[in-house]
Amino acid sequence: MPSAKTQPARGMRDFLPADVRKREYVIRVIKEVYECYGFEPLETPAVENIETLMGKYGEEGNQLIFKILKRGEHEKTGEADLALRYDLTVPLARVVAQYQNELPKFFKRYQIQPVWRADRPARGRFREFYQCDVDVLGSRSMVVEAELIAAASDALVALGFDDFTIRLNHRQVLTGILDQAGVSREKHDDALIALDKMDKAGPEGVARELNDRGIVDESAVKLMHFFEGLVGAQHALDLVDFGDGIDVQGAYNTDVLGRLVEFIGSHEMGASGVDDLRQILQFAKASSVDQRIKLDPTLARGLAYYTGAIIEMNVADLVGSLGGGGRYDNLVGMFLGRDVPACGFSLGLERIVVVMSERDMFSAQLVSSPADVMVTIWNEDSISESIALADELRNKGLRVDVYPEADKLAKQFKYASARGIQFVAVLGEDERLRGEVAIKDMRSGEQTSVKRTDVENAVRKRGRI
Amino acid sequence: MPSAKTQPARGMRDFLPADVRKREYVIRVIKEVYECYGFEPLETPAVENIETLMGKYGEEGNQLIFKILKRGEHEKTGEADLALRYDLTVPLARVVAQYQNELPKFFKRYQIQPVWRADRPARGRFREFYQCDVDVLGSRSMVVEAELIAAASDALVALGFDDFTIRLNHRQVLTGILDQAGVSREKHDDALIALDKMDKAGPEGVARELNDRGIVDESAVKLMHFFEGLVGAQHALDLVDFGDGIDVQGAYNTDVLGRLVEFIGSHEMGASGVDDLRQILQFAKASSVDQRIKLDPTLARGLAYYTGAIIEMNVADLVGSLGGGGRYDNLVGMFLGRDVPACGFSLGLERIVVVMSERDMFSAQLVSSPADVMVTIWNEDSISESIALADELRNKGLRVDVYPEADKLAKQFKYASARGIQFVAVLGEDERLRGEVAIKDMRSGEQTSVKRTDVENAVRKRGRI
Repeated sequence: MPSAKTQPARGMRDFLPADVRKREYVIRVIKEVYECYGFEPLETPAVENIETLMGKYGEEGNQLIFKILKRGEHEKTGEADLALRYDLTVPLARVVAQYQNELPKFFKRYQIQPVWRADRPARGRFREFYQCDVDVLGSRSMVVEAELIAAASDALVALGFDDFTIRLNHRQVLTGILDQAGVSREKHDDALIALDKMDKAGPEGVARELNDRGIVDESAVKLMHFFEGLVGAQHALDLVDFGDGIDVQGAYNTDVLGRLVEFIGSHEMGASGVDDLRQILQFAKASSVDQRIKLDPTLARGLAYYTGAIIEMNVADLVGSLGGGGRYDNLVGMFLGRDVPACGFSLGLERIVVVMSERDMFSAQLVSSPADVMVTIWNEDSISESIALADELRNKGLRVDVYPEADKLAKQFKYASARGIQFVAVLGEDERLRGEVAIKDMRSGEQTSVKRTDVENAVRKRGRI
Repeated sequence: MPSAKTQPARGMRDFLPADVRKREYVIRVIKEVYECYGFEPLETPAVENIETLMGKYGEEGNQLIFKILKRGEHEKTGEADLALRYDLTVPLARVVAQYQNELPKFFKRYQIQPVWRADRPARGRFREFYQCDVDVLGSRSMVVEAELIAAASDALVALGFDDFTIRLNHRQVLTGILDQAGVSREKHDDALIALDKMDKAGPEGVARELNDRGIVDESAVKLMHFFEGLVGAQHALDLVDFGDGIDVQGAYNTDVLGRLVEFIGSHEMGASGVDDLRQILQFAKASSVDQRIKLDPTLARGLAYYTGAIIEMNVADLVGSLGGGGRYDNLVGMFLGRDVPACGFSLGLERIVVVMSERDMFSAQLVSSPADVMVTIWNEDSISESIALADELRNKGLRVDVYPEADKLAKQFKYASARGIQFVAVLGEDERLRGEVAIKDMRSGEQTSVKRTDVENAVRKRGRI
């Protein structure tokens, strides 16, 4: 009986072989795409000095960090000096500060590693999960945003996704909108929390939340007027059948840019954000991802460190996003003392695997059996011959299992079947005398004897390996 | 200036791209070999419930475990409820107990993940390091030991090692030797610590250490007589030139088996251990790894949980081993309540990478540049064209970087050179008018213009990609 003491720790998971294969497949595809964009791999330790992490994720973040007790005689003080990595962005900022003289001027890195958060576990929310990050450090050019969006989008396409939306917004644009609506700076965070719910709660819900959070009167009316206008524009487009060849999404984005220009007017920071968005859309067109991009002025994203463009990728059948990111030009400065411009994007491995599993997107691509052939053991005296045959076949590149004991043959066959191994090789006495091997196809039940040197070909041909 | 606050935590390391590529190459090769043997991947969480780990590694182990503070209101109690994984074997035993009904009768798994130990950091000793484990659960057959040895040996050969020794011994044989020498059971551990130093301290050193540990008189004399006989036999073989085709290692192992039989005599447990060793050697012959195996009755290995064969793989230029393992038939029982026979082997990633780096074994095999081509930016107005070209080349499978800013061309060239990117693509005004792209080979300095559709071929041909 499995008992509590054999379960993994709360909110953590064991991955049995079939799970690992899915996860590794997704990681491999993402890596290949990132490498095609010139990103290089980085790895950092799971454990960081506690002061590296504290104060970087807000008050809630501080509490969700797993902290490690001091060791030896200091253990009984109950103090922590180390902590588990909470994301891959803060360690990257530390790395950029530490190795500034060794890294290229533009550091394009990807990093695919687990992070740990002591969140209350829930469906799809774990305390250990993998982030697949790409970041570019060293440039303020919107080429960076465009390349990051294209890379993450290509990764999703390579995995088989064709229906995701890339939501794009800009922190400075949000500041511009709220300033122009007359929302005081100390109420900006409250307003963003409310606006972020437009998708789920609709305009009425947002209006109520703005009110609850003390954003009332003229500024609330102005905000709601602007955002209801956007919703209206979307609805209008949804209702019309434009026929093929019409760039509906492009028309919507152009419309939104126009509304932003009008609303933000001469607000300098906001106008500069709108320019960034316009450039990103223009560059995205060159790599054909613009069709997936939807400007969404309600997108806020939680993390405090974003300073420019913010991005999220969503599919309809997943609450939350497949990934997200944005520009954070001030974070490295917290370690280095001078700012280094930076922008990044993170895909969530667990969420991708969940959606792909539910949609049955893995089937054809994955190896499901642990071996191509299983070599049986005829009797105690012929074990060495079975091992030698396995060795020959492995040297020819086949994946070969050897049944470890001289059990009855029927039992060995049953075991191969249960593990999904298609071919079983039998070295019976007659076969050995003739220099042959009996090959049984566990799917068809067919059994044939072939020359020992032909076993590989027979297996490859029939198994289409 | 890098400061203390930007360094990784003590004993932990950041891996910049060149390091990651080396590590990933080694991991990939090891995985491929393990999969050829029918092993399947498993992953477990970095964090385990603290009671899963405590008491499994001896008193010293308990102190080296990184412990995680309880969270929220319990944080101030200073108590730990979780801990970082100390090896991959105890989590495997937990997994086997937890999922016994889902796992095959013989569970062959590999697991390549980091473990954490609060050891005092030293040259080559880190607080976070990777273990590459293979284990077989469910069988007492020596086919298991033979397959594990062959798999780990094949992995080292596939990495380019041709000079390693596989040391083989058996816990029951050690018990037999010590019992027959008259060493009392409570002195066995002391005797093993002394014998383990035969390699470094020689017979005199071992004799002294036995004496220091209170193993004196007749039992010490008997032990020393036996082990000096082994050393003598090795020296005798070393001095003779046997010529080709003579199995010197086999002759030595046969000699050692004979000495063991003679010394252990009718000691039941010891004799059964000798039988195991004889079988392992016989099966190893079938996969041609027997030539590398050296029976070594001084090999003890530290971990308390071993019950049968113990194995270590060594090269001359590394203190310590490249990997080690053995049979542990009782560990799963600590979780399940009934024993499940088990045997495993672990290769140390860090040590393999250290030796391969020092011997320059990586050179030819690794991608060293981050991209095949870098597309330059001619001016602000042509950025989209550069991105479109990059997109085209990526779709053809090339790894392509885009310089993110409209800097002077010379600066962009210099950057590509510094990053080791061989080809630079320039979309100048003349080229664009002619539908061409200028390709500069940064190694030869040669620059030619080719049709836009021929860029991929030009790069592949000249770069041998």
